Amino acid sequence: MNATARSDEHQALLKHFFDGKVLGLARAITVVENERAGFQELLHTVMASGPQTKRVGFTGPPGAGKSSLVAAVATEYRKLDEHLGVVAVDPTSPYSGGALLGDRIRMNDISTDPGIFIRSMATRGSLGGLAATTKEVVDLMDAFGFDRVLVETVGVGQTELEVTAAADTVVVVLVPESGDAIQAMKAGLMEIADVFVVNKADRPGAPRLVKELRQALHLRAGSALQDIPAHHGVDLGQAMKKERTTDAPAKEPEGWSVPVLTTNALTNEGVEKLLDTISEHRVWLEESGEIEQRRRARAAIRIRDVVDREMRRVAWKSDDVQRLLREGVEEISAGDGTPYSAADVILGTLLR
Amino acid sequence: MNATARSDEHQALLKHFFDGKVLGLARAITVVENERAGFQELLHTVMASGPQTKRVGFTGPPGAGKSSLVAAVATEYRKLDEHLGVVAVDPTSPYSGGALLGDRIRMNDISTDPGIFIRSMATRGSLGGLAATTKEVVDLMDAFGFDRVLVETVGVGQTELEVTAAADTVVVVLVPESGDAIQAMKAGLMEIADVFVVNKADRPGAPRLVKELRQALHLRAGSALQDIPAHHGVDLGQAMKKERTTDAPAKEPEGWSVPVLTTNALTNEGVEKLLDTISEHRVWLEESGEIEQRRRARAAIRIRDVVDREMRRVAWKSDDVQRLLREGVEEISAGDGTPYSAADVILGTLLR
Repeated sequence: MNATARSDEHQALLKHFFDGKVLGLARAITVVENERAGFQELLHTVMASGPQTKRVGFTGPPGAGKSSLVAAVATEYRKLDEHLGVVAVDPTSPYSGGALLGDRIRMNDISTDPGIFIRSMATRGSLGGLAATTKEVVDLMDAFGFDRVLVETVGVGQTELEVTAAADTVVVVLVPESGDAIQAMKAGLMEIADVFVVNKADRPGAPRLVKELRQALHLRAGSALQDIPAHHGVDLGQAMKKERTTDAPAKEPEGWSVPVLTTNALTNEGVEKLLDTISEHRVWLEESGEIEQRRRARAAIRIRDVVDREMRRVAWKSDDVQRLLREGVEEISAGDGTPYSAADVILGTLLR
Repeated sequence: MNATARSDEHQALLKHFFDGKVLGLARAITVVENERAGFQELLHTVMASGPQTKRVGFTGPPGAGKSSLVAAVATEYRKLDEHLGVVAVDPTSPYSGGALLGDRIRMNDISTDPGIFIRSMATRGSLGGLAATTKEVVDLMDAFGFDRVLVETVGVGQTELEVTAAADTVVVVLVPESGDAIQAMKAGLMEIADVFVVNKADRPGAPRLVKELRQALHLRAGSALQDIPAHHGVDLGQAMKKERTTDAPAKEPEGWSVPVLTTNALTNEGVEKLLDTISEHRVWLEESGEIEQRRRARAAIRIRDVVDREMRRVAWKSDDVQRLLREGVEEISAGDGTPYSAADVILGTLLR
């Protein structure tokens, strides 16, 4: 397709998108997911008017019942007549056996509701650039004008933490079987949680986990932002703290005490309370000015993502660089170099 | 520490390393994991003599019993008096409840054996640069002179597939509960497997999974390398195919038929057969010239990893770029731009 035809196609797509037709959203997602030519211009256009909606992230280990909980939460929001976007990212789900089947059925219940648009990125777990692309899909959902966007990720690694960090409110879902509070801390979940939920709260061990989490949160109170893990050379905690020291809103936000709730997604127990808590967090975000700080931190990270991706793209499409890469491989193969010596040569041609 | 002191420290470390003292290896791993100043020079030095050992990767979904199987395999190799390095990367393990406890105990059995050096990277799952750093730790293990290095990763995403691709022989471990062959295909495991193992083979569904995998492999025969997922703009399959079209060894390797084995790691059933198969795969790798092709593909990917990381590092340490980043955030915050417009400005100063 030539640039004019593409531009026409994107114009048509954007018209649907801004008219609130899900067809336009679905097509925009396809363009972004596949990084088709012009996808960055498309994102620039839809994001020009800034964030439009509330983003709530749900994360936690496999088997914590996140999908069930998201389905239960979505059902409650629908009772309030909210229009919802749901992005589910679960690279482990291809392996989900019987345990997740119930979640699937529940998800199917909500997926036939025209008031909910669900995008599952489960099968894309092994493709490149997951984190950046997934965040961009959430941006598309945001810009489309839903009342709320729910993002579900498995808290198993870097990628998922990054995606979760793209939400305004992060709900970390645990179950007694998922280990103790110390393990949640080690996994970096303590640092990103705005709300803890102990799901399947009727199981043995739930009260103990609740107690441990409260104790751990109490110990960490006041230093919550300091240990958010660094990624791509960006420290989210640092970025947030740095933004706070700028001369923008001088108001220091009053602290938010991370609550530990209990739910049973299958019986709906505790789900209303969770919605209330998410609303309270929203009020805090806006009244304290924290929402603006988070958006700034997010903007900084997003700029870096785009720059990093584009640097890679430009670098590796160069014929010169490809030639040097081949020569480097030959040298290494001949026992005459290492990836470090070969990379040095390439970097010499790339960097100003 | 100044550069001279650091250089002295690294010299001392390297002496231990090349003398075969695990203290030197352990210190080298610490330097690399923390990306301390000079870590790339260190890697360049130890890798200068090329790959030294056989690398066997084990991957598969959480709960497949990979750790038990690795422990069983390690125990067998020890009977053959091999010295082993083991790298275990499992971002999900912080959540491993009772199910994994057995694996842990088994691992503890082998971890007291001075003939095995085990490095677990389980707690580092949420930190940045996991894939590149982990591959570098495997390189250190390789260079140290073990008879064999076993690498265990959870096959849940991009990072883990990348790490697995750093092995000469990739064993994909499944259990009946982990889903069917179609799901393994979707997750990209079919493309990276040199050997399939259906573990916990006494469970219902095991014979069916074996049959399905064999059928799926039969259908895919001959096209196995074409669909290896792309990452960081590098397509491993493409890289391998590209290397094959160079004028290096003209010999087209005879195909390797991916076998589907059954094991029960806890009773040791099938473990000897797995070792035999890994040996057969090794013979095939060397006789067909495939090992050289794989090493070239690996070298190409490693060069790219190093270049990408260094581009990011150089870019974001620049004061100019940091200033533009702050300005970009301000503009976005003021509703006057998007990450894409801000990134454009930064890219203009970075790229030749």
